[in-house]
Amino acid sequence: MTTRSDTRHSALHGGTHISLAHGNGGKRMRELIDQIFVRHLTNDLLDPNADAAILPPLPPGSLPALTSDGFTVDPLEFPGGDIGSLAIHGTVNDLAVSGAEPLYIALNSFIEEGFEIERLDRVVASIAAAARAACVRVVTGDTKVLRKGEGGGLYLATTGLGFRRPDIVLGLDRILPGDRIIASGPIGDHGTAILLARRQFGLTGDLQSDCTSVLPLARALLARPGLRFMRDPTRGGLASVSHEIVRHTGLSVRLFESNVPIRNEVQAVCEMLGYNPLYLACEGRIVAVVDPASVQDAVHALRQLDAGRDAAEIGVVGEDDPYVLLETELGGERLVEELDSDPLPRIC
Amino acid sequence: MTTRSDTRHSALHGGTHISLAHGNGGKRMRELIDQIFVRHLTNDLLDPNADAAILPPLPPGSLPALTSDGFTVDPLEFPGGDIGSLAIHGTVNDLAVSGAEPLYIALNSFIEEGFEIERLDRVVASIAAAARAACVRVVTGDTKVLRKGEGGGLYLATTGLGFRRPDIVLGLDRILPGDRIIASGPIGDHGTAILLARRQFGLTGDLQSDCTSVLPLARALLARPGLRFMRDPTRGGLASVSHEIVRHTGLSVRLFESNVPIRNEVQAVCEMLGYNPLYLACEGRIVAVVDPASVQDAVHALRQLDAGRDAAEIGVVGEDDPYVLLETELGGERLVEELDSDPLPRIC
Repeated sequence: MTTRSDTRHSALHGGTHISLAHGNGGKRMRELIDQIFVRHLTNDLLDPNADAAILPPLPPGSLPALTSDGFTVDPLEFPGGDIGSLAIHGTVNDLAVSGAEPLYIALNSFIEEGFEIERLDRVVASIAAAARAACVRVVTGDTKVLRKGEGGGLYLATTGLGFRRPDIVLGLDRILPGDRIIASGPIGDHGTAILLARRQFGLTGDLQSDCTSVLPLARALLARPGLRFMRDPTRGGLASVSHEIVRHTGLSVRLFESNVPIRNEVQAVCEMLGYNPLYLACEGRIVAVVDPASVQDAVHALRQLDAGRDAAEIGVVGEDDPYVLLETELGGERLVEELDSDPLPRIC
Repeated sequence: MTTRSDTRHSALHGGTHISLAHGNGGKRMRELIDQIFVRHLTNDLLDPNADAAILPPLPPGSLPALTSDGFTVDPLEFPGGDIGSLAIHGTVNDLAVSGAEPLYIALNSFIEEGFEIERLDRVVASIAAAARAACVRVVTGDTKVLRKGEGGGLYLATTGLGFRRPDIVLGLDRILPGDRIIASGPIGDHGTAILLARRQFGLTGDLQSDCTSVLPLARALLARPGLRFMRDPTRGGLASVSHEIVRHTGLSVRLFESNVPIRNEVQAVCEMLGYNPLYLACEGRIVAVVDPASVQDAVHALRQLDAGRDAAEIGVVGEDDPYVLLETELGGERLVEELDSDPLPRIC
């Protein structure tokens, strides 16, 4: 529903599309910043006139955590999210799986000349909604306008600042033989939703991206003993996280095909197009490594949460040769190779 | 001089140009990150395998300072700098003029498919050199590859994290009538250098961009009493900083044309092309507002530094109508309007 007030905001100075003048540091740029970015993202720390956001002290003794991500997803809007929610959740999730509490976001936008202002307004509203959901505040940012023909419409880069309690220690170097691997939910939803949204192969479907904050899941795992390592399996999917574990530990990873949660729609699309869901991106899942004594409790804790109701123990770290192996439903064994050529570019 | 070792690093897996596979989260991407980014930027806090950088605690009681900027300068390399040094200095400078000490940088790269790896190597080496010069560390980052035809070669977004002592208070709201305005050096060098580097108007010249860290200048001003406000006059130049002051204080700004330091080359180019140097970007200057009693001492302090040897008192904040006025060398008075259409896009 478009109200008169919405319409007022979706046109700046009579224009309905972004022009180069919206990026030149002058009056039009100030209008764009005020009427689109500040209007949606306003909070008591966001001062569009400051060169830097000066923030309250972090909790005494805590360790600052900083992460950054670029977003070039195509299409910009898709079932279950858009580049805006993706940019917030992606950065929040990188902090969450590092064991940190996210607090603040710095937002960079590269907008192509000719981009619809109404569409930009929708994306920034989505950024604001995602930030509210994850309890983070956008406190600083910058906007550049790219010449028409460059820029693919809109790119975003978000940097997240949070803090980690000094007693939390996680990392690839904490992983031991015998550790178990958990997935917090079905894999490949985001990748498949993007693929369907492109309508490239004449396929359509109702599948939604899993794009969301994993913070509640991460907190549930952090509150229990035995957690070694967490990662959100974005680009490259579960297969790439498994390879990372192998590469850094020199150990093996064995995944149990029948335990890996995969939605029927994802499986069907992969079979039709010859994709392997293990390589498809998630944007709201955690892959966690926990010690064997804690795995049942960890899976149980995740399942108490709505976002973790399909959580499952999906694999084990072993002392075999350093490979990623998939134990198939029929009892066979297949090597999962490292991703080389990309099945699905511009997924995030 | 290209040594065998340099050559080895400027080709990844036999390729000499960036391909989409360098951005897909797989093996090629890891190679690109390791052999270009990590090789140049390596430090004890940069872990390419971590989702987030976990940093040492900030000084007790200090206020975290966060700032972010996107860079789309054209051409990517210019006399006195390149997009890499610009991205570091720009972000360091935003922290410095906020009264903060810069510590860490998050680096986002958007690289166009087909970009020369050797050129990327040069830019990342320049990022590393600028970071060393400003004593900041690149601790996290992300790389995306854009399809050929999008992306203008290379865009960067840098976010800077630093801290401010709680006793430092600066801001537009501290400015009072009678306060004096200082420029730390000649204005418009960066804008003019970029313009000359484009060779659009058949003009060439030796002028170098002023692209550098203003941190020593900012520290010198912070160490003395009477400092109200600092800004680095980038996009929109001195005129836009002056307008900001007027807009936020309701006071007037009067600039003295004969006192504003401008290089002969900058003046000559502006006269030939009909540009006004007051609107041209600097990337290594500070505009500062200080109380009248402190202005001589502040200018003297800046002049002790190599980067501030041309520092000058260039204007005054007054209680006239809220306009920016230029008192000309002949004693006349001219209104300095707010920047509307951009004389020079993609300057940073």
